[in-house]
Amino acid sequence: MDWSLSIDKAIPKPLRVILRGVGQVFFCCNAVTGLIFLIALYVGGITAGLAATVGVISSTVAAYLLGFSDDDIDAGLYGFNGTLVGPCLFLFLENTPQLWLYVVLASILSTVVLAALMRILQPYNIPASTSPFVLTCWMFMVAVYSFDGFSRGPVLSAPGIPADIAATAVVTTEFATLTQEAVVAWYTAITKGIGEVMFADSVIVGILFLVGIAITSLRGALMAFLGAVAGVAIPICLGADKTLIEMGLYAFNPVLTMMAVGWVFLKPSTGTAILALLAGILTVICQAGLANFLAPMGLPTLTFPFVLVMWMFLFAASKSRYWANPQ
Amino acid sequence: MDWSLSIDKAIPKPLRVILRGVGQVFFCCNAVTGLIFLIALYVGGITAGLAATVGVISSTVAAYLLGFSDDDIDAGLYGFNGTLVGPCLFLFLENTPQLWLYVVLASILSTVVLAALMRILQPYNIPASTSPFVLTCWMFMVAVYSFDGFSRGPVLSAPGIPADIAATAVVTTEFATLTQEAVVAWYTAITKGIGEVMFADSVIVGILFLVGIAITSLRGALMAFLGAVAGVAIPICLGADKTLIEMGLYAFNPVLTMMAVGWVFLKPSTGTAILALLAGILTVICQAGLANFLAPMGLPTLTFPFVLVMWMFLFAASKSRYWANPQ
Amino acid sequence: MDWSLSIDKAIPKPLRVILRGVGQVFFCCNAVTGLIFLIALYVGGITAGLAATVGVISSTVAAYLLGFSDDDIDAGLYGFNGTLVGPCLFLFLENTPQLWLYVVLASILSTVVLAALMRILQPYNIPASTSPFVLTCWMFMVAVYSFDGFSRGPVLSAPGIPADIAATAVVTTEFATLTQEAVVAWYTAITKGIGEVMFADSVIVGILFLVGIAITSLRGALMAFLGAVAGVAIPICLGADKTLIEMGLYAFNPVLTMMAVGWVFLKPSTGTAILALLAGILTVICQAGLANFLAPMGLPTLTFPFVLVMWMFLFAASKSRYWANPQ
Repeated sequence: MDWSLSIDKAIPKPLRVILRGVGQVFFCCNAVTGLIFLIALYVGGITAGLAATVGVISSTVAAYLLGFSDDDIDAGLYGFNGTLVGPCLFLFLENTPQLWLYVVLASILSTVVLAALMRILQPYNIPASTSPFVLTCWMFMVAVYSFDGFSRGPVLSAPGIPADIAATAVVTTEFATLTQEAVVAWYTAITKGIGEVMFADSVIVGILFLVGIAITSLRGALMAFLGAVAGVAIPICLGADKTLIEMGLYAFNPVLTMMAVGWVFLKPSTGTAILALLAGILTVICQAGLANFLAPMGLPTLTFPFVLVMWMFLFAASKSRYWANPQ
Repeated sequence: MDWSLSIDKAIPKPLRVILRGVGQVFFCCNAVTGLIFLIALYVGGITAGLAATVGVISSTVAAYLLGFSDDDIDAGLYGFNGTLVGPCLFLFLENTPQLWLYVVLASILSTVVLAALMRILQPYNIPASTSPFVLTCWMFMVAVYSFDGFSRGPVLSAPGIPADIAATAVVTTEFATLTQEAVVAWYTAITKGIGEVMFADSVIVGILFLVGIAITSLRGALMAFLGAVAGVAIPICLGADKTLIEMGLYAFNPVLTMMAVGWVFLKPSTGTAILALLAGILTVICQAGLANFLAPMGLPTLTFPFVLVMWMFLFAASKSRYWANPQ
Repeated sequence: MDWSLSIDKAIPKPLRVILRGVGQVFFCCNAVTGLIFLIALYVGGITAGLAATVGVISSTVAAYLLGFSDDDIDAGLYGFNGTLVGPCLFLFLENTPQLWLYVVLASILSTVVLAALMRILQPYNIPASTSPFVLTCWMFMVAVYSFDGFSRGPVLSAPGIPADIAATAVVTTEFATLTQEAVVAWYTAITKGIGEVMFADSVIVGILFLVGIAITSLRGALMAFLGAVAGVAIPICLGADKTLIEMGLYAFNPVLTMMAVGWVFLKPSTGTAILALLAGILTVICQAGLANFLAPMGLPTLTFPFVLVMWMFLFAASKSRYWANPQ
């Protein structure tokens, strides 16, 4: 919205770039939105907030030092992968002092990988999105088994969810009834689904994220909301694990897919909204497939289902008569 | 052949596009050939025939609705991946009513993936071939573990072969003798090898496929036949499992590779025929490697060995002085 | 150096091309360097030397017959992948007479894969480097499980190291002390690290390799040496397995990365030297990650960590204001 962009422009450049970097996690080049996201992260947990802060600063400063495009840095494009790297490593690896060094190193690498993927995808005019974060975190997480200095945190039992959290989740709720419990279950799953984009298993964090997105774009917030609804409804129809659904762990990928396809990268229209819904449904199936594929290696899917489906739809868009790509 | 192309042109457009889609499984843009393939599929089994019909229609209609190139749709290029998706899911997943919905969804996705890969490969002038079918089916097959609504069919014991079929196959035949049994074994393995391209473990289906190809091109049929011979002879020399050889499960990939390299995508000559043979031999090794690689995940290779080797040879062809690429 | 290039030019063409092919393993287009490498390989073991000779000749002759660029062949670019394929297959597979046929076939395939990857990477002006060797050897190694004619050699217990060798290695040495033992341990690990690029677990072979590189370029030799130091120091800091460190098995990838980033492909400067060091550190982490990733399939990383990190840095380099790419 206009007032938030005025504030965005008034913020001193270094701070603005960092806050935009946080905002870009949900495609929002807006420091006000980024500030709300960052506050939400600290609300979710001090460590997650600090890790995100260290990550976004490391990856952005690395981009300056390595001489990458000023315009891209200014838009926060070199910040959002670092923002995600920090909380991700602190969720999945053991919290030790060395882990901070690891977060800095991984954030720097995510910047190099982003520049590389931007170059690879340049002829196609397709964004790298969060793929550098995913590839970097996968590599660091699987490398850790070889090093004494680090160890894995709680063993993963499911896509992106530590075992102990899963155990405490209520699994008896019926989404399909019209009772008050069903309303609470839907409300919880949808908001947590938005929160889980940045690893926050929290209703309030999800609501704050949605408010932050709405400040930048109402259509963006609508797509995020519909993505979360799809990420709860579709796995229920297909008969997926209720605990995972309730944690929002099927929802955070369709949230991003529907925002990307239905708002950011294609011309906003009713047609692309329908397309976004199709993409969201396929993201849920892709999430289930990739989770099973990665399970033997103990790796979570992170946001790769979103990246894969978004790439397919954006590449395909350029072959279509109807889907204009304004970028 | 000329008479078949005259008939092809006389068929009403919607039917012609669908039949060409089936024909394109073996690179034949010819509705007569497609009709013979479809009849062969129904001969192999009503379910496989119906699944192929639903698949080819879903993927072609999706291409229309998504606004992809009319020329490509008319040539049947948006049909052959759907044709393969249908019988594949019915072979490897449990036959339930919901599976039909799954086939429709997977066929639509194969169309999106094909458009995306066509865009990615466009600067190189390389075909996506059956890779969308393979990637889509892998994703749906591995996703199914997470959903109550579906379950896996017979556990796979080997590349593309359900365990119970493998158990009933005769394993004592000696290919290397000059007895009548050896002749029958070769004849069975070669024809089934052609049939297995569309998952048909049947001599008569393989013969019908070969007839269909011959109607479009005699060189195409010769390459398919030589590919099947290579796919029986090479694994025998290397000492592979006889049951798999006899089922034609080492042969369906070299069949496609030799057709692609020796007939469709390079200038037909003695040189490219020799090249096709080299590609066929390497496809057998790639088949064995990929099958072992995918075995822990319970996934079959499908036609990916063919796709990989064909891609390597076609990319390499453009660096060569001798291999002209008329496309 | 000038005198060696004069000798290089005086050598008859067929021999020069073959020797340059060996030299290109360490990016040295210099027949004198190649000759020293080849002698070192024979010093390391007759079989390894013969296998490398058969490999380099097979892949180079294949490139001639397939009609690939004369300039590339003359520079030895179609030789180094074959040079590596030979000793690799003899280290990891059982030594049988058929294995020689296998080496020839794999060397031919590495030439096709190289041409294909050169074509794919052409728009980006990025080298394929040793990726054809890695991909070809992985495929042949995993295929072998299906064939009676071959069997696997000693089971791998760790990245690139047969179990029996690991068992005999001394594991008690302390790198971190200032005793004579520490000096010997560092000296051994660093030289073996350079030797392991061509699978030689030998101090003398590593020294000969370093001498060969120095004949072509002192900066190249310095980068190789620093890469080996990084490949010993970093895993010690991170607490990796001492046996592997002492065998040089964490060092051979950073050796190649630092040569590529700090000498061959970017403009030589202090800045790119620092960049090379960062790339070297990340290569060690990538080595650990990829080793754990591939372990369930019984595959070694070979030089893929180097290839991945080099690709990331070279792709990223073209997006940077500071890193000029003179190629």
